[in-house]
Amino acid sequence: MKNITIIGGRAITAENLLNILVNDKNVTVKHVTSSSDEEKRVEEFYPQLKGKLSLPFEKYDLEKFKDDTNIFFLCVGHGEGFEVAKELYDNTNALIIDLSANFRLINPKDYEDWYKFSHPYPEYLEIAAYGMPELNSEEIKKSRLIACPGCYPTSVILALVPLLKSGIEINKNVTIVATSGISGAGRKAVEDMGFPNPVENIRAYKVGVHQHTPEMEQGAKLFGGKEITMTFVPQVGSFKNGIISEIIVDVLGSFSLEDLKQKYKDFYQNDSYVDITDALPEIKNVAGTNNIEIALTFDVRTNKLIITSALDNTIKGASGQAIQNMNLHLNH
Amino acid sequence: MKNITIIGGRAITAENLLNILVNDKNVTVKHVTSSSDEEKRVEEFYPQLKGKLSLPFEKYDLEKFKDDTNIFFLCVGHGEGFEVAKELYDNTNALIIDLSANFRLINPKDYEDWYKFSHPYPEYLEIAAYGMPELNSEEIKKSRLIACPGCYPTSVILALVPLLKSGIEINKNVTIVATSGISGAGRKAVEDMGFPNPVENIRAYKVGVHQHTPEMEQGAKLFGGKEITMTFVPQVGSFKNGIISEIIVDVLGSFSLEDLKQKYKDFYQNDSYVDITDALPEIKNVAGTNNIEIALTFDVRTNKLIITSALDNTIKGASGQAIQNMNLHLNH
Amino acid sequence: MKNITIIGGRAITAENLLNILVNDKNVTVKHVTSSSDEEKRVEEFYPQLKGKLSLPFEKYDLEKFKDDTNIFFLCVGHGEGFEVAKELYDNTNALIIDLSANFRLINPKDYEDWYKFSHPYPEYLEIAAYGMPELNSEEIKKSRLIACPGCYPTSVILALVPLLKSGIEINKNVTIVATSGISGAGRKAVEDMGFPNPVENIRAYKVGVHQHTPEMEQGAKLFGGKEITMTFVPQVGSFKNGIISEIIVDVLGSFSLEDLKQKYKDFYQNDSYVDITDALPEIKNVAGTNNIEIALTFDVRTNKLIITSALDNTIKGASGQAIQNMNLHLNH
Amino acid sequence: MKNITIIGGRAITAENLLNILVNDKNVTVKHVTSSSDEEKRVEEFYPQLKGKLSLPFEKYDLEKFKDDTNIFFLCVGHGEGFEVAKELYDNTNALIIDLSANFRLINPKDYEDWYKFSHPYPEYLEIAAYGMPELNSEEIKKSRLIACPGCYPTSVILALVPLLKSGIEINKNVTIVATSGISGAGRKAVEDMGFPNPVENIRAYKVGVHQHTPEMEQGAKLFGGKEITMTFVPQVGSFKNGIISEIIVDVLGSFSLEDLKQKYKDFYQNDSYVDITDALPEIKNVAGTNNIEIALTFDVRTNKLIITSALDNTIKGASGQAIQNMNLHLNH
Repeated sequence: MKNITIIGGRAITAENLLNILVNDKNVTVKHVTSSSDEEKRVEEFYPQLKGKLSLPFEKYDLEKFKDDTNIFFLCVGHGEGFEVAKELYDNTNALIIDLSANFRLINPKDYEDWYKFSHPYPEYLEIAAYGMPELNSEEIKKSRLIACPGCYPTSVILALVPLLKSGIEINKNVTIVATSGISGAGRKAVEDMGFPNPVENIRAYKVGVHQHTPEMEQGAKLFGGKEITMTFVPQVGSFKNGIISEIIVDVLGSFSLEDLKQKYKDFYQNDSYVDITDALPEIKNVAGTNNIEIALTFDVRTNKLIITSALDNTIKGASGQAIQNMNLHLNH
Repeated sequence: MKNITIIGGRAITAENLLNILVNDKNVTVKHVTSSSDEEKRVEEFYPQLKGKLSLPFEKYDLEKFKDDTNIFFLCVGHGEGFEVAKELYDNTNALIIDLSANFRLINPKDYEDWYKFSHPYPEYLEIAAYGMPELNSEEIKKSRLIACPGCYPTSVILALVPLLKSGIEINKNVTIVATSGISGAGRKAVEDMGFPNPVENIRAYKVGVHQHTPEMEQGAKLFGGKEITMTFVPQVGSFKNGIISEIIVDVLGSFSLEDLKQKYKDFYQNDSYVDITDALPEIKNVAGTNNIEIALTFDVRTNKLIITSALDNTIKGASGQAIQNMNLHLNH
Repeated sequence: MKNITIIGGRAITAENLLNILVNDKNVTVKHVTSSSDEEKRVEEFYPQLKGKLSLPFEKYDLEKFKDDTNIFFLCVGHGEGFEVAKELYDNTNALIIDLSANFRLINPKDYEDWYKFSHPYPEYLEIAAYGMPELNSEEIKKSRLIACPGCYPTSVILALVPLLKSGIEINKNVTIVATSGISGAGRKAVEDMGFPNPVENIRAYKVGVHQHTPEMEQGAKLFGGKEITMTFVPQVGSFKNGIISEIIVDVLGSFSLEDLKQKYKDFYQNDSYVDITDALPEIKNVAGTNNIEIALTFDVRTNKLIITSALDNTIKGASGQAIQNMNLHLNH
Repeated sequence: MKNITIIGGRAITAENLLNILVNDKNVTVKHVTSSSDEEKRVEEFYPQLKGKLSLPFEKYDLEKFKDDTNIFFLCVGHGEGFEVAKELYDNTNALIIDLSANFRLINPKDYEDWYKFSHPYPEYLEIAAYGMPELNSEEIKKSRLIACPGCYPTSVILALVPLLKSGIEINKNVTIVATSGISGAGRKAVEDMGFPNPVENIRAYKVGVHQHTPEMEQGAKLFGGKEITMTFVPQVGSFKNGIISEIIVDVLGSFSLEDLKQKYKDFYQNDSYVDITDALPEIKNVAGTNNIEIALTFDVRTNKLIITSALDNTIKGASGQAIQNMNLHLNH
């Protein structure tokens, strides 16, 4: 039985961690923190947890938590998040699973270029394992600090890597149009969208400048062995959860689509959460699950391969994958 | 005062024509046809028209309609649609505005390749004017048979043509990812999607093989003067009305984005329904209107120009544009 | 040609007034005010009006407006609203149509009991005509100050009055459960609901204490001639526009349901916006229209008459009815 | 470890049973039946189960199932449902949990009056235990045939019984307005609603004649000891899952609302799924859970007690309660 503490307990990621962990007989949630002064218990803030958990929100307290916690999930962004991650890593033996972007990128300069801040602890970028279980299991088993991938990068890297490793020659520039549900922006940011935006709408944002771009390019290099540049067009739609990504790749040589599909299936044959489908992926198929659907289409007229993937951004794109990392690390 | 007859009165296009025409003091809707035997009046089938119109659904009847109709709107697909269009054109002096795909394409072979049927009256493809008012006004004023564009082609051709005419050198292959509301599939087809598909979902379909592809390529050539091939990835989302298109163009030379934006504004300076925006287009901005929003973004890292457009597929993409064509033709 | 000024131009009611008025060839919108300092034109704030209207938001200015305005629509609540209404009434000859609750109630004490403030100008409560065109046309034609009904009261009073005047004996207490779309709360208030409340939810609020209760009881007395008390249970649902009201009445004597239906039809035979239906009302039938659907069902086991009504709260329940009042007053 | 077979595996109730059971370490789903001839595996029909279960749909086969099944869940309606239930009860020792209405009512005449058919096996109505765990646990523990309650009756009976047992004098007629999500109608029936009904709509149906009425009256008598007649006004809204019920009761004597609230809390103090709340219930609080929220409001002006309850019709109103029954029976 492992004990868990969640830091930043009012984030959407924390909510989804709790939704899953209360049904896991092998773990106990011991503490959930919140910096808010509002007097509310965890099960009042999340009524769906009533009867499954009974805990107050607590202030973060290293001394109190360190003796009874085996695993910390970090659901806080930059600022407080850096200090907490470092302090926990240096002063406990616990496993630290960070759901923020704080330790995802290997190159500190990417933080300056894309996130517009200077990373305070660049030496921990090497310590952290990038938490994509299907592609990086050895690192995840070894490191006590796991940086969970972004939602878009999960939907893109898993879909792209088997192609990159297939030997098929492609143009080094890849175009991605990905559409996310509104939950992707987090509980606070989503309020800026305001009423009636989320209803019956879809729009592009941060075209060409989204901060997940370097993470996706890093994944292509790290796991696919190719230097790819990506033109990234993110959209946000009027649905709550889910991402569908259209990855358009210019194929330079000839190839067999059927062979490539088989290579994808072989590549993920031991990964129960990755589903290479014949039908085109749909968000409804993966909503509420840790699954990702991936399908391949080839436009013979224009020599473009279109890789479509669908996942639930709050589960496989965040909290579900975080728990997948936990289980992978614990069972190695 | 002009008299109007609508053929195929239970199509979504017919509904939207009626919604607009009942508020137009210069026209009277005289007849609305339906092949259904269900006993219902038009204002019962469309309760929102109660108090604004009082008409039975009638069976199509050339003899009855030809003397009291100045304008026919055709909302029927292929099959019956071809016969009706030909008969009306040959036996009346009325204006015929066809909202189907029957006369949109100039090259009969495109019907065989993309629609999988042989066009029964190819000689009328030359008679018909392609009904895109901003780009083809002279033809629309002259012809008595107007073929209204498809919804996706409207969203793409209007957004692409000023670039094609700008002199900027681009790759001849253009990638388009466009997302449509469920109404795009028509009242009947949408039932195949079934419950609970339309709720909280988004999915791609007909990737690379959508029948609007040749129409978009035809528009690029006809109005932009360029032979372009298009990789077209259509998606359908869980919202009712609207299309957002992301058109990704590989720019080969150097250019000024600000100059290009100005060229777009100049190009459409007399077109009140086209709005070149600084903010990225949103479906909610154009829902229920005949407007199209178009914006330009340049990804300097990858040399891609992303043209984003948003329109209401049922209005600017169908019935609103059809009425725009009617007004343009009548007032020339 | 009449000139119109709208005070409080960023309210949802103002938006819907504009949506309708831009299509009315007999009026011109001259001014739209806003107390916000944000630099935006009216057609930027409401993109659906682009091409139909071109106006800046102005600060309220009696001197500037009084000479070129025939009709003022007031879309501001209490506070500023009282002062503006009084000043316009005393210093102009214009027609003033107030969409707030400020002059709806005849008895000043109702403001104290239900709205929790003391009415500053009770003498104007007698001057104002209650703007329910089907029931109060003579007063509306005579008064220069028209107080438009609340959304719930419109849905209830129109549905109840023919019964009250039918002579059928009923219990003096009537129960109402009414469900409104989220737009009913106004643009600002709705933000308190926050994310993800509006999505997939329904909840009751202000049970027994909603401020529309005295207005509905007033309507029953004024137009139905009966002192009725109402148990009012309002709910808010996850849809944008519409109200469906279930009005449950304990019938004491015997009666014929068919006769009563006929009495309803006779009562509203000249009112094109009231539709007595055999099928149970649905919000989708009235969405976007100024219509109200009313149907009667009798539960023989329990001797209860259930009157169901459906309307669009933003149109028949607010801006549409306001314009109906304008037209009634101008054409008398 | 118990083995489970689900009969009628394409019903919404079957889907929700599977969603819950695949996470239960104490049971194994052995068989799922379907009478459809479509070639699809269970995890293809329900993509969210991929990786959690791997089973074909099978035809119903008593001989095959009886040796390896401990618990049968019946998700088929009348017709086939009666025969299967009887056959399984007579020829196995398994626990049979029926989610249909087939054995809910004690009085066979209620089936004739409300369901319009004659019950083929009325003797089994006495054998069956009404599966409302909080109110009928002793019977549920004893019987091998459990009839799970309807969704509306669950939302009403649990909310009403503590009042009926409180000794407070009330009018014998109770009014209920309950609003359900579209999933309540079942996968097939919902298709009749068609597009675009489910979007942005709400409507009443079967007012005064809904077949759940006798079940609710039966529950009031059985568990509350009072002969109550109910005026039942069901509505269906544009959301997927959930029911909110407004139960309006005429209080005849005087009473203390605070005392009554305390009595409700005491009544359900050992029932972890029943939550007596101070805030008014909301569907979003209970969506996806087996919880029911109940709150009490008193309208002092009209002497009406309003009991509001909210539950997820697919979980507490169907499949969740069925599993609650299973666990209660197995652990007695």
